[in-house]
Amino acid sequence: MGKRVVITGVPGVGKTTVVNGALEVLGKEGISYQSINFGSFMFEVASSQKIVSDRDGMRKLPGPVQKDIQREAAQAIAKIEGNVIIDTHCTVKTPKGFLAGLPEWVLRELKPDMVILVETDEDQILSRRLTDTTRTRDMDSGKEIALHQEYNRAMAAAYGMMTGCTVKIVKNQDFLLERAVEDMAEALR
Amino acid sequence: MGKRVVITGVPGVGKTTVVNGALEVLGKEGISYQSINFGSFMFEVASSQKIVSDRDGMRKLPGPVQKDIQREAAQAIAKIEGNVIIDTHCTVKTPKGFLAGLPEWVLRELKPDMVILVETDEDQILSRRLTDTTRTRDMDSGKEIALHQEYNRAMAAAYGMMTGCTVKIVKNQDFLLERAVEDMAEALR
Amino acid sequence: MGKRVVITGVPGVGKTTVVNGALEVLGKEGISYQSINFGSFMFEVASSQKIVSDRDGMRKLPGPVQKDIQREAAQAIAKIEGNVIIDTHCTVKTPKGFLAGLPEWVLRELKPDMVILVETDEDQILSRRLTDTTRTRDMDSGKEIALHQEYNRAMAAAYGMMTGCTVKIVKNQDFLLERAVEDMAEALR
Repeated sequence: MGKRVVITGVPGVGKTTVVNGALEVLGKEGISYQSINFGSFMFEVASSQKIVSDRDGMRKLPGPVQKDIQREAAQAIAKIEGNVIIDTHCTVKTPKGFLAGLPEWVLRELKPDMVILVETDEDQILSRRLTDTTRTRDMDSGKEIALHQEYNRAMAAAYGMMTGCTVKIVKNQDFLLERAVEDMAEALR
Repeated sequence: MGKRVVITGVPGVGKTTVVNGALEVLGKEGISYQSINFGSFMFEVASSQKIVSDRDGMRKLPGPVQKDIQREAAQAIAKIEGNVIIDTHCTVKTPKGFLAGLPEWVLRELKPDMVILVETDEDQILSRRLTDTTRTRDMDSGKEIALHQEYNRAMAAAYGMMTGCTVKIVKNQDFLLERAVEDMAEALR
Repeated sequence: MGKRVVITGVPGVGKTTVVNGALEVLGKEGISYQSINFGSFMFEVASSQKIVSDRDGMRKLPGPVQKDIQREAAQAIAKIEGNVIIDTHCTVKTPKGFLAGLPEWVLRELKPDMVILVETDEDQILSRRLTDTTRTRDMDSGKEIALHQEYNRAMAAAYGMMTGCTVKIVKNQDFLLERAVEDMAEALR
């Protein structure tokens, strides 16, 4: 039976870089993980059922339909053999407030073994967002980024209560990427 | 189908002022909300069933009876047509510690769309409490107010996990009431 | 019907000293509590069913079996008459991250009335751990201790949402043990 690991981090924290580095390290040790983006997986579920035809259609679905798709996606992921990384957000920042990435009905199906929060100081995230010209990012202040990370921790605690998963914080600090990669590899090992 | 929005804030944060301001703004736009105080609504449920004769009787009810009344009140609110504001506490500070305003059995019935936390810095709340001679308020220190607000955020995250509601923080800072009113109106819009 | 009170605190915070002091105070008032260590109680459940022969065997049990033992231990504790203190961790710090001491399936059976977090500043805990030569403790930094305490608060909020228990913070500060003992006694009174 493989491990199911949810990996999260606010935009700009460098989650993908850390995960890819860790998977490279683990690959040399013969440990492999299948990576699944939860949002893309939900879209596949919805499009295979002809519920939507494009990604944009997902947002426009009524709440109860979205909920069903989330649940079915979680069920399908839980059936995958071997180690799985689920790439998602701990909470999504929306105009109406923070939204749980893994609400109760997802957690009950997904039953993750671990939730990893990739974090770093808000000023580092701010400067990474400002210098990343390849994506349009929210123009949050440092305070707002700090709040988002604080809220993610509180949310992860609720996930831990509901599922019994561990919650691991991996720091991805400036100039210390190697350490972040090793911490991530150790968590996934 | 209307929206169900839970609005909370520690005593002295100015929740009522911000909500009334926002409802005035929204009224001009043709958007209306029915406001319900959760505690008063529970009392109505209990008194209509002849369980209590006055408000004071509510506190003396055995735990399981209180729980049933909470659940029934939540069920009844969930059936109301149109937009509803539920005025309650995210957590209540009691001599035995912080108590969830919306425990699991309430959340399952109420299914809120949004929980709004009205917040400001603890020193501002402290000075508002000290100058408010119309009510007897807890004489908490600034640190205790900060802790209560921190705990409310953590609790709101648990609410978000359980229901999928968004959690919005509206700051009601000194000299910036207009901004708080506009943020609240935007959340309710 | 007795009270069920969960008492938690990070290693080195002085939980045992505060609890024993409070129980002495309460004893003089004719109030008594039975103290149960949740881990030891789980071991008794498992060994009475011949699932394990020694304490070390507990760690090696498959996840689902551990879960069943946790649930049965919680059920058995919930049946005890009179006041009960359950000594456990709010969260356990493991190499794979923070683990909930009371996950959902334990909470549903245990139904605690109160969760008490014994806390103090991280530098005080650090110096207590450094000078305690009787036990091998984690060599966490002050920052890591602060994070563990912050995470425990968030977790306790999730417990409060799920069960409706109150969450009380008792500070055990240097030179103020008497005050901690009195706060603890008042919570348990």
